[in-house]
Amino acid sequence: MAISKQILDDTTARLREKLAHGRVVTDPEILETYGADETPALRSVPDLLVRAENTDEVRAVLEICNELGVPVVPRGAGTGVTGGAVPIRGGVVLSLEKMNRILEIDRENMVAVVEPGVITGVLQKEALAEGLMYPPDPASLETCSIGGNIAEIAGGPRAVKYGTTKDYVLGLECVLPDGSLITTGGKYVKNATGYNITGIILGSEGTLAVVTKIFLRLIPAPAYSMDLLVPYGTIGEAIDDVYRILTARVVPATIEFMERDAIAVVSEHLKGEMPFPDAGAHLLIQIDGDTEESVLRDIERLGGAITADMEQVITAESPPQRERMWKARRSIREAIQAMNPEFIAEDCVVPRSRIPEFLKAVKQFLSPYGLKSIMFGHAGDGNVHIDTLKGDMDPGRWKELIPELKRGIYGIAIAMGGTITGEHGIGCLRKEYLGMAMNPASMELHRRIKKAFDPNMILNPGKII
Amino acid sequence: MAISKQILDDTTARLREKLAHGRVVTDPEILETYGADETPALRSVPDLLVRAENTDEVRAVLEICNELGVPVVPRGAGTGVTGGAVPIRGGVVLSLEKMNRILEIDRENMVAVVEPGVITGVLQKEALAEGLMYPPDPASLETCSIGGNIAEIAGGPRAVKYGTTKDYVLGLECVLPDGSLITTGGKYVKNATGYNITGIILGSEGTLAVVTKIFLRLIPAPAYSMDLLVPYGTIGEAIDDVYRILTARVVPATIEFMERDAIAVVSEHLKGEMPFPDAGAHLLIQIDGDTEESVLRDIERLGGAITADMEQVITAESPPQRERMWKARRSIREAIQAMNPEFIAEDCVVPRSRIPEFLKAVKQFLSPYGLKSIMFGHAGDGNVHIDTLKGDMDPGRWKELIPELKRGIYGIAIAMGGTITGEHGIGCLRKEYLGMAMNPASMELHRRIKKAFDPNMILNPGKII
Repeated sequence: MAISKQILDDTTARLREKLAHGRVVTDPEILETYGADETPALRSVPDLLVRAENTDEVRAVLEICNELGVPVVPRGAGTGVTGGAVPIRGGVVLSLEKMNRILEIDRENMVAVVEPGVITGVLQKEALAEGLMYPPDPASLETCSIGGNIAEIAGGPRAVKYGTTKDYVLGLECVLPDGSLITTGGKYVKNATGYNITGIILGSEGTLAVVTKIFLRLIPAPAYSMDLLVPYGTIGEAIDDVYRILTARVVPATIEFMERDAIAVVSEHLKGEMPFPDAGAHLLIQIDGDTEESVLRDIERLGGAITADMEQVITAESPPQRERMWKARRSIREAIQAMNPEFIAEDCVVPRSRIPEFLKAVKQFLSPYGLKSIMFGHAGDGNVHIDTLKGDMDPGRWKELIPELKRGIYGIAIAMGGTITGEHGIGCLRKEYLGMAMNPASMELHRRIKKAFDPNMILNPGKII
Repeated sequence: MAISKQILDDTTARLREKLAHGRVVTDPEILETYGADETPALRSVPDLLVRAENTDEVRAVLEICNELGVPVVPRGAGTGVTGGAVPIRGGVVLSLEKMNRILEIDRENMVAVVEPGVITGVLQKEALAEGLMYPPDPASLETCSIGGNIAEIAGGPRAVKYGTTKDYVLGLECVLPDGSLITTGGKYVKNATGYNITGIILGSEGTLAVVTKIFLRLIPAPAYSMDLLVPYGTIGEAIDDVYRILTARVVPATIEFMERDAIAVVSEHLKGEMPFPDAGAHLLIQIDGDTEESVLRDIERLGGAITADMEQVITAESPPQRERMWKARRSIREAIQAMNPEFIAEDCVVPRSRIPEFLKAVKQFLSPYGLKSIMFGHAGDGNVHIDTLKGDMDPGRWKELIPELKRGIYGIAIAMGGTITGEHGIGCLRKEYLGMAMNPASMELHRRIKKAFDPNMILNPGKII
């Protein structure tokens, strides 16, 4: 516990006085379940849990905790992987999971108005029922929430064509750490009225404000799509083809890649169900469009542009065919976990053209340690997932080595004009490395921005900075 | 002059010592020309002008002026219309017009790296020569600069399909008011590394930092496009068709509208060269795509979706035909200026579906004053240009009335879920109305953000807040 018993009792009493019955939870067994998100080996049980059901309750929690100096950690669905929702300094976990209503899908203006606890996949289905699409597709979309997506600027495979969460947030209602309510933006795309507060809250990992309502841009849903699985001899050949595809004016919805080691681990895990198990690299491409005809035309153009042999390419358009094709890509993490109880997962970004060079440099860096890494991810936008495996290294040595490994991998990404994380965030796991990606002036600016929003430093302390 | 002679002499001497010969300008005739941008009836001559040619010079100016407490007003091409570049409190105008190099067009990563003084239209041409497109298209694109576009989040007709400046800025190098240099983002789309500093600098009208280098996302240029001019009986019918077009999964590059009064004023100005001079409204639609075939298919789909008679529609695909068609739209401001020496220009935003209602309410609001307004703009994104004409009103009464008129128009937009300005910004012209669009907590947050970046309040004082 990070706060004194006296303050905890005080906080509990004041919250219970203000909030409806059942909102304030002190049951240790329940508190226990809010002590972790999906970040491996990170746990810190909160002193108190509040499951807010409306904006007024969020305001009351912040007002009281700000006055008493009690940390507040906003939490969506708890699917983060860098510890953003873990109360490492104790205090109150403010869960927004019950604020999960889709308030409106405004077909005419193509805007969804939602509460932060709405599950991303649920919104996608509801939008699709109206012929509309909410494009961001983080891997966890069936379980993660829009509020969490905003906190981390969640991306996903479709970012190459459709961008990330950032590109769909038109406006926010949020509560500042002192309990005051502000609204930024609304049901419109263009806005030059004052500072871009929406912009700075996006990706702030719950350290600046608690989002209570979100205006999201929707787009007309493409009516047709087709997937292609393309085998290559080397990852370099695959990435060269990414450039050829894009400059042939074909912009696929996704261009995912797997390199040799990723293919090998999945192939072993799936026991032969994997197409092209001997390839040096795969590209998994999805083309979408308004008609079958336009999609086929794009595929024809793509075929003319790339060096890969189109005779070799496997295509899928029915859900079962597609399922089979994506299974390999989606099984990577599972395959790694099944065979390697311990690994560190990074999601660096580099300029797209430098992916092959980056992969090679990371493998070279890890080789003297006798360590192996599996790399895969988003070839279209330069976001590379790097899972470095502990293998049979001595556990003590591995633990000791982790900071050095992270530092090495981040250093390679930064030297190539990239950065530390593309979609998972800094949280508390990467905080000590943030100084690698930015200079002291920028770090100091981060601290001053934090202070401008949160003078008493109560909101999600110990994250980012 | 807002600063004392002693401080001015000091500043001049220290700047001359640090900067190359010719950068620091004291010639009153030249200073005079930096006393205004394109904002009507706003003029304030700077005490000093610095024409910086590189980042180090920008750093030196800010470091010295921050130390001496001298206001610094960054200036791009001076095409703003809300006074953003006018030194209303004197001090130094820091012109970035000579930092106008396109440093790189990276075809492979589809990124342009530019200095802030690059003219938007010049970048568009250079990108197009590489088969790439920089989509934002503010009306002033032949004369405005990328740095200014960032300061105001410039939009343009193509925002309906391609978004605004905000959607293309991947990263910035900028100088903070104390002279320190920071870099945010780079040649990559995904970034979850620390706060979204790029986001908060976008649209900050030169009050938070001086941008010295910009990473811009480019996209494959569409190979073919066609324009359609569609006449309607009423603006309501036109806006209903906008919804029909978008839900038929046709996303035009532009959907501009003119209402009856705009058509009348242009028709009179162009003396009969105007198509459909008697229509109640026009939509001017541009469809672009990769092939003629795909564009024609989109137009067919559009024709099936809208209620307007496609037999009536004029299409244009050659430059001269297109020129003729856009002439009417582009002549609106000129026509208004030719016939009305005095008017106030607003650019409110409302949810797209509410444009007809907004137009009606504004006209109703102005009618008791005996005033008329001309409205036109971006039907696809809800951004409405409203030029309210002085007509033959007594000049004294007009001047006295302006705040009341602005307040009335802004109030209508806000009540409909919109806001004050979509692309022109707050500057100093709308500062006193910002409190209409946001509550005191948000205003206070604006002040604290300003202070976090600029503790001595030297950067573009008197703008936004």
